[in-house]
Amino acid sequence: MKQNIYDNPIFFHHYKTLRQKASNYNRLLEQPTMKALLPPLTNLQVLDIGCGMGNFAKYCIDHQAKHVTALDVSSNMLSVAKQEHAHSQIDYQLQAIEDYEAPSASFDCITSSLSLHYVKDFDAVIGQIAHMLRPNGVFIFSVEHPIATARHTTDDNWVYDDNHQRLHYAVDHYQEEGLREQTWLVDGVVKYHRTIATLVNTLITHGLTIDKIVEPIPSTAAIQQLPSIEKELRRPSFLFIKAKK
Amino acid sequence: MKQNIYDNPIFFHHYKTLRQKASNYNRLLEQPTMKALLPPLTNLQVLDIGCGMGNFAKYCIDHQAKHVTALDVSSNMLSVAKQEHAHSQIDYQLQAIEDYEAPSASFDCITSSLSLHYVKDFDAVIGQIAHMLRPNGVFIFSVEHPIATARHTTDDNWVYDDNHQRLHYAVDHYQEEGLREQTWLVDGVVKYHRTIATLVNTLITHGLTIDKIVEPIPSTAAIQQLPSIEKELRRPSFLFIKAKK
Repeated sequence: MKQNIYDNPIFFHHYKTLRQKASNYNRLLEQPTMKALLPPLTNLQVLDIGCGMGNFAKYCIDHQAKHVTALDVSSNMLSVAKQEHAHSQIDYQLQAIEDYEAPSASFDCITSSLSLHYVKDFDAVIGQIAHMLRPNGVFIFSVEHPIATARHTTDDNWVYDDNHQRLHYAVDHYQEEGLREQTWLVDGVVKYHRTIATLVNTLITHGLTIDKIVEPIPSTAAIQQLPSIEKELRRPSFLFIKAKK
Repeated sequence: MKQNIYDNPIFFHHYKTLRQKASNYNRLLEQPTMKALLPPLTNLQVLDIGCGMGNFAKYCIDHQAKHVTALDVSSNMLSVAKQEHAHSQIDYQLQAIEDYEAPSASFDCITSSLSLHYVKDFDAVIGQIAHMLRPNGVFIFSVEHPIATARHTTDDNWVYDDNHQRLHYAVDHYQEEGLREQTWLVDGVVKYHRTIATLVNTLITHGLTIDKIVEPIPSTAAIQQLPSIEKELRRPSFLFIKAKK
């Protein structure tokens, strides 16, 4: 990172409003997919990277995890987390993953929801994760899909006809990995585009085994709640990779 | 398959002309990538699915493979193969992979260049391949990239401005797997679109381990020979997966 857009007060205000809606991509698509990929959590030591407001950390404890170490770079996020999802078995830490140190084989399960696209040195972070994971441990993460991050633009990647109907999704610059500056709630949100090959091969290089890739599809119920989410059928917003040590 | 567009005389004429050019995607991009992914071939039993004109089968023998079984559905292709790349250690067979049977653990290395997107039942074919592969055997295949096959259209997926400059690449219908009818050399070439998740997970489901994913990037020399290939930097045409049993 250590981008910390979440401590920008305007961004955080918009973000909180978005997340409080009953129908958002997080609740309808990202979190259901993440939870479906989890192993049985009973007695596991979990590390959640980019824990945000702590909902997922609390979910893990509610599902019998032994302990969750929950990292975030945003003090705004963590203050909400500590208010709303405080628990004696959750250790919230104001910390970037790049600066976090833990002994080898400390965790049974490492998760990260939509935060690793903020990381500049993906290879180094995956090296740390592989080091901290116990043998047979599981690593599950989601990032914005490379199809969605590829193009250098601050515009919407959807292309519309004269009646404002979506014609198709624009992809470009796919092989140019690195910085992308985007507008999401506010200007100047900085992300890193990586190809699918890089995302997968970096894990393998660090000794992890790919267990599953998911490009999530909204359920019929999700589409009923939030009709616009149907466009996920036209191009995926998220990519999940589950890997084992 | 068992699409056999290669036995359409007009298609085959165009295809042969294209392949005979010194500068084509096959020579500059697909084949160099495939060859770089190969294990040392010395003494290996190879199965090449969709062997075409036999160049690759011959390459394997030239690099000390013990034997190559080379399948193709096109008698046009195989007659060229038998003329130009006949060898006592190559067994050319007019056969769709779906109809091919071999004992369990018959091959050390199974390859397929740009043919598995013609296969209707990918799961069944990967099951066969996993069955025919020896323990520690290697399976390497390339298909048209899901970014390129996603959209239901017979048009070019590139979108141009008024000066015929490429603006971006159009993606759509990504999650709708299945038949795509495309124009390539002739009308009505039938292919099957599959998501990246399906391509990867099908291999894993059949007990294979993902070793590497490649979305090939043309070399500087390739771009010098064929400047138009530079657009591969904007979106990948091919996806390679290397897996081990």
